[in-house]
Amino acid sequence: MSPRHIRHGFPWVYDNELVTDRRSRAIAPGTIGLLEDAERNPVALVAINPNSRIMARVLDRDTGAEIGRAWIEARLLRAFDLRSRLFEAPYYRLVHAEADGLPGVIIDRFGDVAVIQPNAAWAEAMIEVLSEALVAVTGVSTVIKNASGRARSLEGLDEESAVLRGAAPDGPLAVPMNGATYMADLMGGQKTGIFYDQRPNHAFAARFAPGARVLDVFSHVGGFSLAALAGGAESAVAVDGSEPALALAEAGAAAMGAEARFATRRGDAFAQLEALAAEGESFDVVICDPPAFAPTKKALDRGLRAYERVARLAAPLVREGGLLGLCSCSHAADLGAFRGASVRGIGRAGREARLIHTGFAGPDHPMHPQLAESGYLKALFFAL
Amino acid sequence: MSPRHIRHGFPWVYDNELVTDRRSRAIAPGTIGLLEDAERNPVALVAINPNSRIMARVLDRDTGAEIGRAWIEARLLRAFDLRSRLFEAPYYRLVHAEADGLPGVIIDRFGDVAVIQPNAAWAEAMIEVLSEALVAVTGVSTVIKNASGRARSLEGLDEESAVLRGAAPDGPLAVPMNGATYMADLMGGQKTGIFYDQRPNHAFAARFAPGARVLDVFSHVGGFSLAALAGGAESAVAVDGSEPALALAEAGAAAMGAEARFATRRGDAFAQLEALAAEGESFDVVICDPPAFAPTKKALDRGLRAYERVARLAAPLVREGGLLGLCSCSHAADLGAFRGASVRGIGRAGREARLIHTGFAGPDHPMHPQLAESGYLKALFFAL
Repeated sequence: MSPRHIRHGFPWVYDNELVTDRRSRAIAPGTIGLLEDAERNPVALVAINPNSRIMARVLDRDTGAEIGRAWIEARLLRAFDLRSRLFEAPYYRLVHAEADGLPGVIIDRFGDVAVIQPNAAWAEAMIEVLSEALVAVTGVSTVIKNASGRARSLEGLDEESAVLRGAAPDGPLAVPMNGATYMADLMGGQKTGIFYDQRPNHAFAARFAPGARVLDVFSHVGGFSLAALAGGAESAVAVDGSEPALALAEAGAAAMGAEARFATRRGDAFAQLEALAAEGESFDVVICDPPAFAPTKKALDRGLRAYERVARLAAPLVREGGLLGLCSCSHAADLGAFRGASVRGIGRAGREARLIHTGFAGPDHPMHPQLAESGYLKALFFAL
Repeated sequence: MSPRHIRHGFPWVYDNELVTDRRSRAIAPGTIGLLEDAERNPVALVAINPNSRIMARVLDRDTGAEIGRAWIEARLLRAFDLRSRLFEAPYYRLVHAEADGLPGVIIDRFGDVAVIQPNAAWAEAMIEVLSEALVAVTGVSTVIKNASGRARSLEGLDEESAVLRGAAPDGPLAVPMNGATYMADLMGGQKTGIFYDQRPNHAFAARFAPGARVLDVFSHVGGFSLAALAGGAESAVAVDGSEPALALAEAGAAAMGAEARFATRRGDAFAQLEALAAEGESFDVVICDPPAFAPTKKALDRGLRAYERVARLAAPLVREGGLLGLCSCSHAADLGAFRGASVRGIGRAGREARLIHTGFAGPDHPMHPQLAESGYLKALFFAL
């Protein structure tokens, strides 16, 4: 094991770094224990999961801490203070796992409702305490457990979601962001119903909205298009493969009184991009925010080719002088690789571009300084 | 030479890529010529400077273009359109060299006044046409040539500044940005008197301003402190080694009616950081925006140590839960290296941090997609 890395702030111990025996491999997932170095000096309190490649997650380097309600409340309070200073309305990611000192725990807040994703075994084991502390710190009345996270299977956890406190909202919830209104389906949607991480990138693109014709590809519930409509776009077209996502986007546009300026096209995004080009369409602003094409290192080459293809198909739809926004939420594709693929695609479309802005996830998605890969989201904005 | 790179959009030809003879080395700096490949096929119109390592800069890949007043106006108009959509008031970088299609040319606009830095020989040779076109496109009444750019000596150009049109402003000019008022000394200041590139980073830090005590180290004319005062800071202290810069910062605070909340400390920034620690001071927000410690690859190691030292000395001055902003404008230190040095420094100060935002230069500083190094400015914001 690697007490030195931990002492320097690294938050994880991998299974191949620990000396384990039958007894340690039988430890119940989520057990909290004391990590010691080879000389048996205490290093940190950790949450143990022998079923996970991340066998221990650092909870506290103060080995005298007591991991209970008060400890969790202190962590939540620190996270809450930061968001309260950042945002006027209580709609944000409240806890972003390791970076907020609660390893593997994601909590999104939607006004009076909070959604917890306990993606590590210790959090699953302490879910009731987490839920109580969350109510105490934030005053939310409803707490939902969302168990659909991909990471849970790596931890050997089930996929059963549940309402832990209060009553489940009886329908989509209205979420105000960047002047727009989004509809979030907290019980049925992807992730936890809405992607707060794109907030600053929505806002950047919306600076080009006044009077603009906007195309929002891989739109999900209409992230970029609804922000553009709020920013004064003449029209916005959302393209997505998911009928429920587009229905929520339409409901958002209707809630904003912008339904007359909003249209949707359901179908494969690549095919839709080609169809729009065949129809001779062009837009002032085109944004593509696809799912992770390169979620793992193995998928990197194929993923980068997919990003290049998105850029190549999208660039011709942007009028001369317009804006092209290309996003990646792939962990494996770093900024340089993603930018390279995007620039190649634009070049292959025969267009020249200037890169005017590079954006990442919003500040309610802090990064643990030792986990560079948590910087998964990149958004590149090109003036064509 | 490398016609393939040029055909793929690379904007420069280095001297060691060209076959030159006595005749070509005698070409007058700034001459516009036709670049051909080995088979004598035309590749691009280029501006030639046999005195520069960048021996040819691509002006147009359309080899039939005529590089004159109309051509320059078209480039300026494209740059102007982008800024007009981005900013409400006419205070911005209008032309950012290669990325705006005018190689080596920097133009900053301050309302009715424009400052040109012709940092390549072709622009020096065409300065009168540039100036006329600038007036025609933007309607500014004063055009100043600033010849203090470091790049000019690499091009073999002199350092004589001049007023090309209208009358030089008789004193510092008030520049509105992020709700603050800056005073820019266009005739005497560093660069062109004010740094527009930090605009979005000033704005990000100002989100933490309400009620905050702010320390702005390497403040120049008060970039971060005045934005924080405009954002509701309880107080701001600017630290810089330059008396004229601090005087301009004070004039800006006075223009905002915020002089009672503003103080300056002149002196070496490292010594001032140590002195503030010795005085037991602490702040809600600390920002350090030093000059380029690693301007070249040779200076990289020493530069990174200096960035680490800044972080180590600044972190103890941030109260628990406060914000630490660390900036680098070093070409040679890439984002990963700068982040590493910053995180090490914070760690050596015994503090834990979450990285909540990474910012670059504002969108009026576009990047040529093939010149990654033009992304010189990085700003890291840590919640401590």
